Amino acid sequence: MRLSHLALAIPALVACSSSGPAGSQAASSSSPALQELMKSRKLSEDDVRAALMTYTPTGRHDEYYLFGSGGHSGQVVVIGIPSMRILKYIAVFTPEPWQGYGYGDQSTKLLAEGRKHDHDLTWADSHHPALSETGGDYDGQFLFINDKANARVAVVDLKDFTTKQIVSTPLIESDHGATFVTPNTEYVIESAQYPAPLGGQYADLKEFKDKYRGAVVLWKFDRAKGRIDRDKSFAIELPPYMQDLADAGKKASEGWLFLNSIDTELAYGGDTEGNVPLEAGASKNDMDYLHVINWKKAEEVANTSGKTTTITGMRVIPLQTAIDEKLLTFIPESKSPHGVDVTPDGNELVVSGKLDTHTTIYSFAKIKALIEAGTYASRDAYGVPVLKLEDTIRGQVDVGLGPLHSQFDDKGNVYTSLFLESSVVKWSLKDLKVIEKVPVHYNVGHIAAAEGDTVSPDGKYLVSMNKWALDRFAPVGPLLPQNFQLIDISGDKMKVVYDLPIPLGEPHYAQIVKADKLHPIDTYPPDTDPLTEQPSPWKVEGGKERIERQPDGVHVYMSAVRSHFTPDIIRVKEGDHVHIHITNLEQSQDATHGFALDGYNIDLSLEPGEHDDVDFVADRAGVFPMYCTEFCSALHLEMAGYFLVEPKK
Amino acid sequence: MRLSHLALAIPALVACSSSGPAGSQAASSSSPALQELMKSRKLSEDDVRAALMTYTPTGRHDEYYLFGSGGHSGQVVVIGIPSMRILKYIAVFTPEPWQGYGYGDQSTKLLAEGRKHDHDLTWADSHHPALSETGGDYDGQFLFINDKANARVAVVDLKDFTTKQIVSTPLIESDHGATFVTPNTEYVIESAQYPAPLGGQYADLKEFKDKYRGAVVLWKFDRAKGRIDRDKSFAIELPPYMQDLADAGKKASEGWLFLNSIDTELAYGGDTEGNVPLEAGASKNDMDYLHVINWKKAEEVANTSGKTTTITGMRVIPLQTAIDEKLLTFIPESKSPHGVDVTPDGNELVVSGKLDTHTTIYSFAKIKALIEAGTYASRDAYGVPVLKLEDTIRGQVDVGLGPLHSQFDDKGNVYTSLFLESSVVKWSLKDLKVIEKVPVHYNVGHIAAAEGDTVSPDGKYLVSMNKWALDRFAPVGPLLPQNFQLIDISGDKMKVVYDLPIPLGEPHYAQIVKADKLHPIDTYPPDTDPLTEQPSPWKVEGGKERIERQPDGVHVYMSAVRSHFTPDIIRVKEGDHVHIHITNLEQSQDATHGFALDGYNIDLSLEPGEHDDVDFVADRAGVFPMYCTEFCSALHLEMAGYFLVEPKK
Repeated sequence: MRLSHLALAIPALVACSSSGPAGSQAASSSSPALQELMKSRKLSEDDVRAALMTYTPTGRHDEYYLFGSGGHSGQVVVIGIPSMRILKYIAVFTPEPWQGYGYGDQSTKLLAEGRKHDHDLTWADSHHPALSETGGDYDGQFLFINDKANARVAVVDLKDFTTKQIVSTPLIESDHGATFVTPNTEYVIESAQYPAPLGGQYADLKEFKDKYRGAVVLWKFDRAKGRIDRDKSFAIELPPYMQDLADAGKKASEGWLFLNSIDTELAYGGDTEGNVPLEAGASKNDMDYLHVINWKKAEEVANTSGKTTTITGMRVIPLQTAIDEKLLTFIPESKSPHGVDVTPDGNELVVSGKLDTHTTIYSFAKIKALIEAGTYASRDAYGVPVLKLEDTIRGQVDVGLGPLHSQFDDKGNVYTSLFLESSVVKWSLKDLKVIEKVPVHYNVGHIAAAEGDTVSPDGKYLVSMNKWALDRFAPVGPLLPQNFQLIDISGDKMKVVYDLPIPLGEPHYAQIVKADKLHPIDTYPPDTDPLTEQPSPWKVEGGKERIERQPDGVHVYMSAVRSHFTPDIIRVKEGDHVHIHITNLEQSQDATHGFALDGYNIDLSLEPGEHDDVDFVADRAGVFPMYCTEFCSALHLEMAGYFLVEPKK
Repeated sequence: MRLSHLALAIPALVACSSSGPAGSQAASSSSPALQELMKSRKLSEDDVRAALMTYTPTGRHDEYYLFGSGGHSGQVVVIGIPSMRILKYIAVFTPEPWQGYGYGDQSTKLLAEGRKHDHDLTWADSHHPALSETGGDYDGQFLFINDKANARVAVVDLKDFTTKQIVSTPLIESDHGATFVTPNTEYVIESAQYPAPLGGQYADLKEFKDKYRGAVVLWKFDRAKGRIDRDKSFAIELPPYMQDLADAGKKASEGWLFLNSIDTELAYGGDTEGNVPLEAGASKNDMDYLHVINWKKAEEVANTSGKTTTITGMRVIPLQTAIDEKLLTFIPESKSPHGVDVTPDGNELVVSGKLDTHTTIYSFAKIKALIEAGTYASRDAYGVPVLKLEDTIRGQVDVGLGPLHSQFDDKGNVYTSLFLESSVVKWSLKDLKVIEKVPVHYNVGHIAAAEGDTVSPDGKYLVSMNKWALDRFAPVGPLLPQNFQLIDISGDKMKVVYDLPIPLGEPHYAQIVKADKLHPIDTYPPDTDPLTEQPSPWKVEGGKERIERQPDGVHVYMSAVRSHFTPDIIRVKEGDHVHIHITNLEQSQDATHGFALDGYNIDLSLEPGEHDDVDFVADRAGVFPMYCTEFCSALHLEMAGYFLVEPKK
């Protein structure tokens, strides 16, 4: 529908109210009502349309889920579209007590998997969520997310919206081109960002060219187990260029992988030591290298004995082997790019260099032909073959200032974010012509379109992930939210229809999936450990709750049900090792109980059917209340008991 | 405006489109447009009105802020009204990396203030936020929030929306009637919930009646300093009834304090030990005791030498002294109440017992007269005088099932949440008659009205804080959000106009303040330590950045500005103690930088002008990238450097 029509609605009502028979009386009474509300809230006709496009009445469910990274909150944010209501923050890399995440044995062990360099890591910089795919389409089963700061990858199961695994390799120190999946989620891709000696070794920056390296890790995903298989995963050594964003080929280009890089100048900063600053050094040349990787070939090589070296437990294809096996090729790309995006049909790649006003369209067919023919223009300093730019592209589009990231719709259009212009440009993939631009507020980074990274985008909605909010919202002090703007791309003209402040974290990237692809459970089967998804070995049955003194300490087998913990009194002696095994006996949706033990920093969230364990030493004598932290019933306040620690004689 | 008018708008358009001259053509083209949108999104006329009441176009600011507790997330949530967009999560009791809260020296020290029983506490159960008041009105300066699980109180400064102080006393183990402020914020009130021996001593439950106690703590607030003054704070010993919610008298009742209690039966559970379960034991009697406290008198007593005993550093007025000094009186109240709310004029108290269908209206004048005359009906088991219920009340209202909490508007109406009925009832304070009910979804706990706890409520908006969401939103697994429903109370009929899922935490209570009462800053003066609000003693000036080896380790004086850290290379030796002093030189709004040091679990958020410090041992040799974690500029990815730790020889 065209806005211009709606724009006439209000005057029409007025005109109407002074006219003819039938509904005219109704009209005369109705138009002032509507107009008064519009006037009192200063709403334009555009606003009315936007309101009706996004407002979602009570009980109505959103059509899409947006999964956004949480930046250095370390979490994932889930947003409903078109209402733009935040539905959940999923705890991933950072402890979060409301979810009991990092406060019970299971989740504490899970977070400990993410230790690195013998350090506990209690935060992450989560950047790029990737939904699991089947045949290049989101299948709604799993979500993967990286930690740029510590080069880690987490697996979230969308069955219960909880984190199931965190993997990391000491091979690399940071990542950025992560996470991206291959079309059937065979692999979860993670590429290094800031070069460092592989495996956590020390080398001074003077040895940057020789001893510092980049790498791309291909984490093998075992869909049946719903976990990454570390042993079947491998990496490819790369030159110490800062590998940036990545995308997996699909359809025509399935089996291939594409990585940007942003510092082929090998700059590493150090202006206080007489070097050029990194931001200048890394922008010296006009071109960086698009990395083209044949991952199916790489998989063969990795599985051929003798062709890999093992570094800190990870199989690595050495750079020279990657060259010899012809699985790594470079193509010049506009400097400092921040996005290589494969078109839905897999035939082309769209690359934007954020310091160039052009977006470049590469032809995969041309690239493949040149690689097969071995027609190289040159080699880089490390001997990696380089194709001739002109021979690989279909053309370029002058999109505007600071192009970053491109998404696709169902009509052959491409949408590219323009950071410096604070706008989104829509252009035609067919004839490479700019169609229109829409201003956003402000400094857009990534954008996300409905099913936009798949082989079959939906169009309809685009979300502009603006890094700065400035004056958009009521002030909340010096630390501002980001502003996610929902853009209606269903019509001829792009329309910003909603501004959503992001109240926690600084999301970088998001994917939008059709809601009906997800089938979350609403309760767990009785006594389930959510991490193993199995009945707990520390089984607790209603009627068989008990306290047992065993060689390894006091074991409490406890149940929770509205409005009672059984047992509700626990007596131990100072110094006792205490193991509490607790299960929520409820099987009705939303009947969640929390378990808090005052003074001992213990807090669990027990969803219906969930079993959790917590293990601690009663090192402090005294009387400590324990109670339910979720308002579960009218007698919730009375769902409490006492943990008594008798002092040593 | 009446909805019934608007309800006719759409048919009117249609009728109109088939009629007369003038705007009819416009109408015929406009009505289909609007109708198509309404039809495609299945919007009723009610929905259209609700959408126009809440939709807030880009750049438009909300009229009110709602400050809600975060439940066992330990944080505070800030929501804009009427848009119901979450504007910010404020980190209070739980570390939060996006805000750098708990990851740098200053905030780590702040959180350490909240240690208790020699345990680090990394979560809280934040229950009742209280806005600072002047003359009984919110003044928009400070927010206080309690931790039910560990009996702590935090101070948030609304100048920069950050937490400045956490106080606790080992006197009590848990709280619930917290936080509430006196009309000029002289004191922040915190009352104990689950009785325990005062001061963290051990005593078996068999000694419950004699050795377990309740208490109310009056934390003295120093407005000039913006901090609680521990030394000027004191407590009053109370019987071991579970003190529940509280409210401070205002106007006519200024100088007085009112507390609910919910277990005058002295039940403590232990059904596995042959006792009655707590939820049954605490509900045995029909009546509990409303605690009436003369805090001005208590203040005099506390400041009279010899009238207090000191327990774990806190001055405590013994129960017998409180009785002798006539500063503590009881009145029967319907059992298990969860709300005592003082009317705006301070003349009456509204108390709801959640197991009674009635809400009781107490007259402060009657209460005061009886206390002054010493006309007591009886005394409780501890000798506390008890007034005769009938002599203290004006009447009762049969409001419905499970009444919890009451709020007020500007027209003499009272709104009471009905947990068991899942509805909000509106009744008249004048004639104590029920006016109407509106269903909510589902299980409403507390409610919050615009300026609803002040001497001058605004009316207009009421938020129903529903504990269960069930089917309201697109599913997100077994752990569901809560549902905050915005209710329009401006007209004759209450209307639910918005459903907001709460994606993190389980808020219990909220206050709503007019947005124009707050005046947050948008940048800090150069080199400011946000905790002291003073220039940092570890001054960093642009141009004077440096690395110094000093007796206590390596000191790095670093600056951050788009797009560079100076210095950007730091070389230390394995085992060195490192002190990084870093300041954000920016003075433009929203120019926030983050500082991440990979592998060392270090992450700071540096708002414009902010100075932070971080202190650690370089215990791991290697090459560790450091970079900016906020997308600050087009060259943000290049805002990076290296932290080099040379191995021991």
